[in-house]
Amino acid sequence: MKNILIIGCGLIGSSLLRAIVKKKLSKKIFVYEKSKVNILKIKKMKLPCFITKDLKNIIPKSNLIIFCTPMSEYEKIILKINKYLQPKTIITDVGSSKESSLALIKKKLKKNISWISSHPITGSEVSGPEFGDSNLFLGKWCILIREKNSNKKNLIFLEKFWKKIGSRVTKMDSKKHDVVFSMTSHLPHLIAYNLVKSAQDFEKQKKYDLIKYSAGGLRDFSRIAASNEIMWRDIFFNNQSNILKVIDLFIKNLKSFKLNIKSRNNKILIKKLIETKKVRKKIIKLKYDIDKPDFGRN
Amino acid sequence: MKNILIIGCGLIGSSLLRAIVKKKLSKKIFVYEKSKVNILKIKKMKLPCFITKDLKNIIPKSNLIIFCTPMSEYEKIILKINKYLQPKTIITDVGSSKESSLALIKKKLKKNISWISSHPITGSEVSGPEFGDSNLFLGKWCILIREKNSNKKNLIFLEKFWKKIGSRVTKMDSKKHDVVFSMTSHLPHLIAYNLVKSAQDFEKQKKYDLIKYSAGGLRDFSRIAASNEIMWRDIFFNNQSNILKVIDLFIKNLKSFKLNIKSRNNKILIKKLIETKKVRKKIIKLKYDIDKPDFGRN
Repeated sequence: MKNILIIGCGLIGSSLLRAIVKKKLSKKIFVYEKSKVNILKIKKMKLPCFITKDLKNIIPKSNLIIFCTPMSEYEKIILKINKYLQPKTIITDVGSSKESSLALIKKKLKKNISWISSHPITGSEVSGPEFGDSNLFLGKWCILIREKNSNKKNLIFLEKFWKKIGSRVTKMDSKKHDVVFSMTSHLPHLIAYNLVKSAQDFEKQKKYDLIKYSAGGLRDFSRIAASNEIMWRDIFFNNQSNILKVIDLFIKNLKSFKLNIKSRNNKILIKKLIETKKVRKKIIKLKYDIDKPDFGRN
Repeated sequence: MKNILIIGCGLIGSSLLRAIVKKKLSKKIFVYEKSKVNILKIKKMKLPCFITKDLKNIIPKSNLIIFCTPMSEYEKIILKINKYLQPKTIITDVGSSKESSLALIKKKLKKNISWISSHPITGSEVSGPEFGDSNLFLGKWCILIREKNSNKKNLIFLEKFWKKIGSRVTKMDSKKHDVVFSMTSHLPHLIAYNLVKSAQDFEKQKKYDLIKYSAGGLRDFSRIAASNEIMWRDIFFNNQSNILKVIDLFIKNLKSFKLNIKSRNNKILIKKLIETKKVRKKIIKLKYDIDKPDFGRN
């Protein structure tokens, strides 16, 4: 490929940049980044890219454009680049929810331009280009969104691209994507935020120094609850209907656990606590996590 | 000290054994263990201890007895050892909740015997002596339960003991202990179990292979939800009233999050998501967790 344009160069964008450089997938990489702080960091680290504001010249030259901004930025940027886009350009993004952003893209993007959405299942609680890592995608799933009208050639192109980056690729439609990730990613993040919020409320209520004794569980949740607020606000709003449903399922189950504890229902409680272990075993077997107690961190 | 008796030699008991040996805190360590599987493991690893069933002879010789069994075993063992106990013997345990077990101890333990309860804030999702580690307590809090009638001499003795093991020691009464840990440890574990259970239910409902895409949040929860079911059943039952209260607070807050998402209340949602980050910062500042993204596991 001759030129890739990365729009938004935070944790994911800069990791992608590093991976593209490492795998020599593009002659030039252009970066469009609105944050002056991030631009300074990128320059200071001498990341091998061309920071540009000149979309008029760069867009027509770009073979692949990758949106790595929060999803709430898409509309503004689409409206900015529309007039420079050419039918041969391939566009993708790395957003964590799909139905709502694809509806927006369909509405706002110039006709006859192909946008095939990607979702690399990776990331962490930190933000910014200084945390980027060329290995961030290695062995991780990347979901490609395949709809009825998806451009097949571009879909194949993107599948190859993500595989070269090191990802494992699978395809599903945006509807299934948003259902799956409402449970495996969006709800867990909301629950972590909610647990930490509850601990903060409780601390104020009781006037105890709770955080001091957070080793036994709260600590793990606090990592997830330290994730980027803009990114997660966008996900919660964009995947609203699925998230509301899994919240209800979660509350229903929690009320059932509450009842088991209240009534000291030994048999049911033990059965539930044993059953959940299977998921961990499956995760370890799939090599999705380190097979060491406590994530091997101690 | 001449002799220590460890009752129950799983993850915590065997870690304590290893730490006592490492720090040379006792001439002999006796182990009373009911699981034949664990006894075989202990023998195979040649852990430096004397496995015994001869409580009649060992109890009067023991300067310190440490209960490291699930809390639901306490009553049976107390009734077994009562007749051999001597006023000079110091007894402690490492259970994760206190009020209810201390009420039982008060009722069942022979009069004039001092039992000062300990709670080392450590552990992991694995069980069994093969996972024990002499460093498990290093730098971790150990809560000593100080009530009005606690034997001061023995309290000082146990404080010194845990400090030698490598723990940081703090004291509180059983009531405060159970309130604090209902929020920092017991609720997070229940929430993790409940999240994994909800994911399992959802997987059956939707017939999707959810676990395959569990990298983004569910993975961390699955570790906590793989913890020992007997230990956690005991905690949920023993600290029932506090846990029921924090479940209610959690559900109240989750319903509020749900409303914020439903009404797209940007201002409140962002405020909440920013606020929770403070807890992570505090935990990192206190050096309670590794200061690397994703627990440094990638």
